[in-house]
Amino acid sequence: MPAPYTLILLRHGNSEWNQQNLFTGWVDVRLSEQGVAEAKRAGELLAESGLAPDILYTSVLTRAIQTANYALDVSDRLWIPVERSWRLNERHYGALQGLDKAETLEKYGPEQFQLWRRSFDVPPPPLADDSQWSQAHDPRYAGLGDDLPRTECLKDVIARMLPYWESDITTSLAEGKTVLVTAHGNSLRALVKHLDGISDDEIAELNIPTGIPLVYKLDETFAPIEPAVYLDPEAAAAGAAAVAAQGKK
Amino acid sequence: MPAPYTLILLRHGNSEWNQQNLFTGWVDVRLSEQGVAEAKRAGELLAESGLAPDILYTSVLTRAIQTANYALDVSDRLWIPVERSWRLNERHYGALQGLDKAETLEKYGPEQFQLWRRSFDVPPPPLADDSQWSQAHDPRYAGLGDDLPRTECLKDVIARMLPYWESDITTSLAEGKTVLVTAHGNSLRALVKHLDGISDDEIAELNIPTGIPLVYKLDETFAPIEPAVYLDPEAAAAGAAAVAAQGKK
Repeated sequence: MPAPYTLILLRHGNSEWNQQNLFTGWVDVRLSEQGVAEAKRAGELLAESGLAPDILYTSVLTRAIQTANYALDVSDRLWIPVERSWRLNERHYGALQGLDKAETLEKYGPEQFQLWRRSFDVPPPPLADDSQWSQAHDPRYAGLGDDLPRTECLKDVIARMLPYWESDITTSLAEGKTVLVTAHGNSLRALVKHLDGISDDEIAELNIPTGIPLVYKLDETFAPIEPAVYLDPEAAAAGAAAVAAQGKK
Repeated sequence: MPAPYTLILLRHGNSEWNQQNLFTGWVDVRLSEQGVAEAKRAGELLAESGLAPDILYTSVLTRAIQTANYALDVSDRLWIPVERSWRLNERHYGALQGLDKAETLEKYGPEQFQLWRRSFDVPPPPLADDSQWSQAHDPRYAGLGDDLPRTECLKDVIARMLPYWESDITTSLAEGKTVLVTAHGNSLRALVKHLDGISDDEIAELNIPTGIPLVYKLDETFAPIEPAVYLDPEAAAAGAAAVAAQGKK
């Protein structure tokens, strides 16, 4: 099908561990009540926009799948095909998974804290396979073998996300399908970095708000024709500022 | 993978139109609050049973998809792969779609009413494409062409459901996957008729209760090794009796 192609990115809403201020990563927590409300609001925004997703791509983490399910339920598109991949998962936070963010900030100081949160190529220490927060024995990752991460920096996320973008998601776009990707702060930052050509240094400043669909129009090379737009720009600006403020005193 | 294979059938819970006593068929109504509760209960039964579905097959109707989403959410299996097909849809009720069941019974009499509900090979009159209850212009069926039904009897449902069973669902079973099929009263009756070798005459007496997982153990030819069991047999018996009583005064 001829371009332009329509791509909609949606970051999952507030989770139970967001509320408890814990590093989450690949730990499979659920949406909080606030997160459910955000997901339903995303569905209303989709319905009001007239954008009708033809296919859904999600991570294999519950909070992203719940977000998609609520949003598609509200917008009467539950029936579209679904593809899931661990390649859309949140960044694996390594040994930080399960730790309190405020305590970590206090223990390691703001410089180390911000390095782990926003460094492009410095991952946190790896998570031990016998940790209660490890995914080494989770059946959904049984086929991954050596691909299973024990920690990741954003550079690592890009390296495992982009092959899926290129092999699967762009194939649906090229068929003329309106594609919805429901995923996480860092897997979506990785994709936006690729799409918008953001440098390794500048990506640290990019914050994607939760629960607000971000719409790209792409040309036949899957490059943006114009800057992507949030379906609720005011809420998106406020949400991005809130994300940026996380961990700050 | 060697047999036995595990197949779990789940009929969606009470819908908004069940509550209003309307013929539904392919009209895409939502679960009622009672139906949501039934779906969550099905998820608890799955979790308690220790049966962990590896893949989900659903129809493209919202009430079956909602049922699967709630059940898998409660049982922490939202992340499994999903396949959807119109071939698992409810029987198309033809010109009866959207009509009140009690009024239809009164207007046409109990004999004609029961013939339309339970006859193996007599479909209701076809639904006109310009009816507000038609699916002729629904985008989810855009690719069906001449396969799109305007009415169906159970024999028709079997004819369009079985190819999907044979080409797709049994393929997952043969890979050793525990398969969950979330569908409808008549598409599941069609499958149970096939599995249990029920005659055309006897199938009229078979009623499948809503919201209670039915578990089959199948051999390498996909034939039952033993009679299928409901995960809550007492509730299933009561539920089947309630289905049988529908439309009776």
